[in-house]
Amino acid sequence: MTASVTTLVPAAETDVTTGPISGSKKVYVKGERHPDVRVPMREIQLTKGAGEANLKVYDPSGPYTDTNATVDITQGLPKLRAEWIKARGDVEEYEGRMVRPEDNGYKDWNKADIDAFPNAPKQVLRAKAGKAVTQMAYAKAGIVTPEMEFIAIRENEGGASHITPDFVRAAVAKGRAVITANINHPELEPQIIGRAFKVKINANIGNSAVTSSIGEEVDKMVWAIRWGADTVMDLSTGKNIHATREWILRNSPVPIGTVPIYQALEKVGGIVEDLTWEVYRDTLIEQAEQGVDYFTIHAGVRLPFIPLTEKRVTGIVSRGGSIHAKWCMAHHKENFTYTHFEEICEIMRAYDVTFSLGDGLRPGSIADANDAAQFAELKTLGELTTVAWKHDCQVMIEGPGHVPMHLIKENMDKQLELCHEAPFYTLGPLTTDIAPGYDHITSAIGAAMIGWFGTAMLCYVTPKEHLGLPDRDDVKEGVIAYKIAAHAADLAKSHPSAQNRDNALSRARFDFRWEDQFNLSLDPDTAREYHDETLPAEGAKVAHFCSMCGPKFCSMKISQEVREFAAKENEKQEGMEEMAQKFRESGGELYVPEKRKTA
Amino acid sequence: MTASVTTLVPAAETDVTTGPISGSKKVYVKGERHPDVRVPMREIQLTKGAGEANLKVYDPSGPYTDTNATVDITQGLPKLRAEWIKARGDVEEYEGRMVRPEDNGYKDWNKADIDAFPNAPKQVLRAKAGKAVTQMAYAKAGIVTPEMEFIAIRENEGGASHITPDFVRAAVAKGRAVITANINHPELEPQIIGRAFKVKINANIGNSAVTSSIGEEVDKMVWAIRWGADTVMDLSTGKNIHATREWILRNSPVPIGTVPIYQALEKVGGIVEDLTWEVYRDTLIEQAEQGVDYFTIHAGVRLPFIPLTEKRVTGIVSRGGSIHAKWCMAHHKENFTYTHFEEICEIMRAYDVTFSLGDGLRPGSIADANDAAQFAELKTLGELTTVAWKHDCQVMIEGPGHVPMHLIKENMDKQLELCHEAPFYTLGPLTTDIAPGYDHITSAIGAAMIGWFGTAMLCYVTPKEHLGLPDRDDVKEGVIAYKIAAHAADLAKSHPSAQNRDNALSRARFDFRWEDQFNLSLDPDTAREYHDETLPAEGAKVAHFCSMCGPKFCSMKISQEVREFAAKENEKQEGMEEMAQKFRESGGELYVPEKRKTA
Repeated sequence: MTASVTTLVPAAETDVTTGPISGSKKVYVKGERHPDVRVPMREIQLTKGAGEANLKVYDPSGPYTDTNATVDITQGLPKLRAEWIKARGDVEEYEGRMVRPEDNGYKDWNKADIDAFPNAPKQVLRAKAGKAVTQMAYAKAGIVTPEMEFIAIRENEGGASHITPDFVRAAVAKGRAVITANINHPELEPQIIGRAFKVKINANIGNSAVTSSIGEEVDKMVWAIRWGADTVMDLSTGKNIHATREWILRNSPVPIGTVPIYQALEKVGGIVEDLTWEVYRDTLIEQAEQGVDYFTIHAGVRLPFIPLTEKRVTGIVSRGGSIHAKWCMAHHKENFTYTHFEEICEIMRAYDVTFSLGDGLRPGSIADANDAAQFAELKTLGELTTVAWKHDCQVMIEGPGHVPMHLIKENMDKQLELCHEAPFYTLGPLTTDIAPGYDHITSAIGAAMIGWFGTAMLCYVTPKEHLGLPDRDDVKEGVIAYKIAAHAADLAKSHPSAQNRDNALSRARFDFRWEDQFNLSLDPDTAREYHDETLPAEGAKVAHFCSMCGPKFCSMKISQEVREFAAKENEKQEGMEEMAQKFRESGGELYVPEKRKTA
Repeated sequence: MTASVTTLVPAAETDVTTGPISGSKKVYVKGERHPDVRVPMREIQLTKGAGEANLKVYDPSGPYTDTNATVDITQGLPKLRAEWIKARGDVEEYEGRMVRPEDNGYKDWNKADIDAFPNAPKQVLRAKAGKAVTQMAYAKAGIVTPEMEFIAIRENEGGASHITPDFVRAAVAKGRAVITANINHPELEPQIIGRAFKVKINANIGNSAVTSSIGEEVDKMVWAIRWGADTVMDLSTGKNIHATREWILRNSPVPIGTVPIYQALEKVGGIVEDLTWEVYRDTLIEQAEQGVDYFTIHAGVRLPFIPLTEKRVTGIVSRGGSIHAKWCMAHHKENFTYTHFEEICEIMRAYDVTFSLGDGLRPGSIADANDAAQFAELKTLGELTTVAWKHDCQVMIEGPGHVPMHLIKENMDKQLELCHEAPFYTLGPLTTDIAPGYDHITSAIGAAMIGWFGTAMLCYVTPKEHLGLPDRDDVKEGVIAYKIAAHAADLAKSHPSAQNRDNALSRARFDFRWEDQFNLSLDPDTAREYHDETLPAEGAKVAHFCSMCGPKFCSMKISQEVREFAAKENEKQEGMEEMAQKFRESGGELYVPEKRKTA
């Protein structure tokens, strides 16, 4: 154990990035049904006098980007949902499970609460006996929760559409969307994952046995949501898993997901054969009490499917999948998360932890895409979805992986069919294996496509995929690539309001409002920096040209001149169209007769 | 004129990057029909003893990556095709047009040959009177040129497939593919652009009035082809256009494209109204004599279509398109490249310059995609294609631009129909407007999709798009993003041999052959650098784990253990499948009955 090269840096000594994104300010939109609902949005400030209204955009970044908020990561965020949860009258407070040294990878009780979060809750919540405290249970009962109203306002980005609080409720009741919101994560700003809503993106963070610290992980979480991550998964596998997660949860306004089998394995010293249902169950409760919003559970990695992976080029590439496979083989027994699935449902419904049914048999290479192992597992996940729904538990389904473009749609179609329209949550997919170092791009291609086809959340891939753990810069690269994919999908799906931002940016571009163009972009800092590399002077930002063509040669400028010219012509009662008409009538000097109908 | 801030650096003082890509060596495959055909390939060297053959891949990088070649950019490359061209007996040598000061943007005759390439040819070639020297003319006549055999070998990457020399000939004869190969560019290593072949990518370079130098542009060309650019467009618009182009052509093993209207405009001092057919024609001949392989000609920007752009969000964004539009408006006349189209054909066929019919009315924003202006122009380009083919001229059609995902396929389908299956050559398309600074990604998504649908060549977009001119790093980023898009498209189209590289890399990944994984990737340097950031020791490159999971926790390692376990079980005559079968028969402890058929 002492061989670990991890250098622990207490999170309290770490700074996180605060302050607004360039050109934006935080605003709040109030609820109507629930007056204490205050939905944060980012309002992009546009040049005054340009005839453009400021643009409100979806903003998962939390209080960190609010100049009026006080941020102290040793205290955690305000408990936005605490009253909503209590007001429902179906939860009870109790003293949660005691933190044990093995929760953080130690044997020594003196190390049990090393680097513990100083302001951890003394009491935790769970459902009163017999109650289901899930958003799905409320939705089925016809209750529009404050979370649902919050979400409806949020999805509309300051406009209006068919997305009403009741539309949200109906989607959750049918299982077509999930609100990942553990009752022990009151800091959460609610959001929804479902294909009728904006496509969401997840950022993975987490330390491993050979690198990084708690402070770095909190910083990465804040950094990821700053650039637009809608949820964050803490995939820590080294020391201090419990403490790292507590710091992240108490400071996170977005849902946090985990893969509990990782910690369970640490608790048994990394020996897969020593895993038991009891250790796993203990881990689920430990994490549910902390407030984890969704769990990846690889209950579809069934014993009979393992032989289907034997001839694969890359076998089983999911860490969780391979752990379960190894355990099944070692014991000649079925996966314990499958055999104990209904007991897991009981835990999930007591805290409202959402299932993210893991694709442990996803393809890890183009050669292995859409094979029998993958689809056998998917079918099982669909069967388990039905079981979970019976318990009023919310469910997402995880998807691949590495898939060439022509096989992507089949994944989506089969998922919708086999999993009864539960939201799909895919990793990419990567559309080729040959670009390690650029897998944010190989996968953004697949992610955009599958998002268009109906995937509700896209798990990002960073440039370090297959090569190392992402650092801060990689996290940003991954998030921006996935914001692009998600937005491209929203446009292709004609999500209400999605194109407003494209149009506003394109108008700014056409008008040479450089600052507006930067501020409307996904990453104003980079856009500004690139522009300034060639034309740094402040004057260039109001100039009606740029470095690509220089002052004499700008197509946008000429295009504006064309427009003015057209207007002038129209004034002269000659008119553009009339002129064109005349031209068509003359026709003599043309080589190819004009056959186009008059517009 | 003296206000230009261009700093001229003579190309001769610039170094270009030479030497092989990490882990590769240049090899040559000989022709059978034409014994002097020697097709360069890059052979990726894999670990000896790993049971893997070295992998030959397509290689447009030219002699620069051959350790046996002597590179001197003041001398230019060897004239590979010179004998092939002369042997056809249909060309004549003559003294070409004299270089004039305005060719380089000057008025003073003393500056006429400033920074001239020292080894420029004294004589140039053109077709003998009445002859068509285009690859299409030969193809129609049933002649398999050395260029066609070269291409067939090249496309097969050391393997064999249906792509024979005669298959190449037939595609060129039908106009479904083009071999862009000016008879005055004998340094060219022939390649083909058509949807039955590997998807190609183009990199744009070129100086502008406010930045860069000749030497930088030569260096960018060499750098772009090093990373995989199949053609390069020189879009220079500042001073020294003629000289820059000469340096690039004499040192380029890939086809060079230009937009002649840019230089024509410089010759008339940037005053659009002063453009004439005579100045334009002079420019076409000037550039054809230098060896430019394809010209973007915006003959579809017709006067009657201009009013169709008036209500657009971003008007006309093509530089060439806006120049022609302005000229048409100013003179109330039809586009002179349209009215003189057949005279242009005569020039093109005398030098074998391929038409790249420009999409001057392409959409510059999501809002303007697939509108009446765009499709009116496309229809005209289809009509002009028929005219060009009548003259045995080769034709590509340029495409957009900014297009949301759900409208991409319509572009491809209409192009195939309206343009009679002439190869499509698209700029992206960008699938959203909101990510300046990352448009290599917004467009790689659209490029991969349209490549899959049938586009033959993808014009790259760099991270600087909309913001500034690409530097060396941007060129590499753009090229790699587009190699990804093109390769993803080749996979989706099941191009022969495309998946070999994915499979080889995935096997290396699964076997923890780290060096092989790096060397098989599109950018070995970056892959290696990212890996070494967390685990720099040489030992880590043979270790059976990596930094993502650490030594105890690797899914690839577990998956290999699963495989060994399965093999052992099989030896014990128990077998995985049998065990699974037993398990299915017992079935008792399952929550969900197993319905899957036995594999």
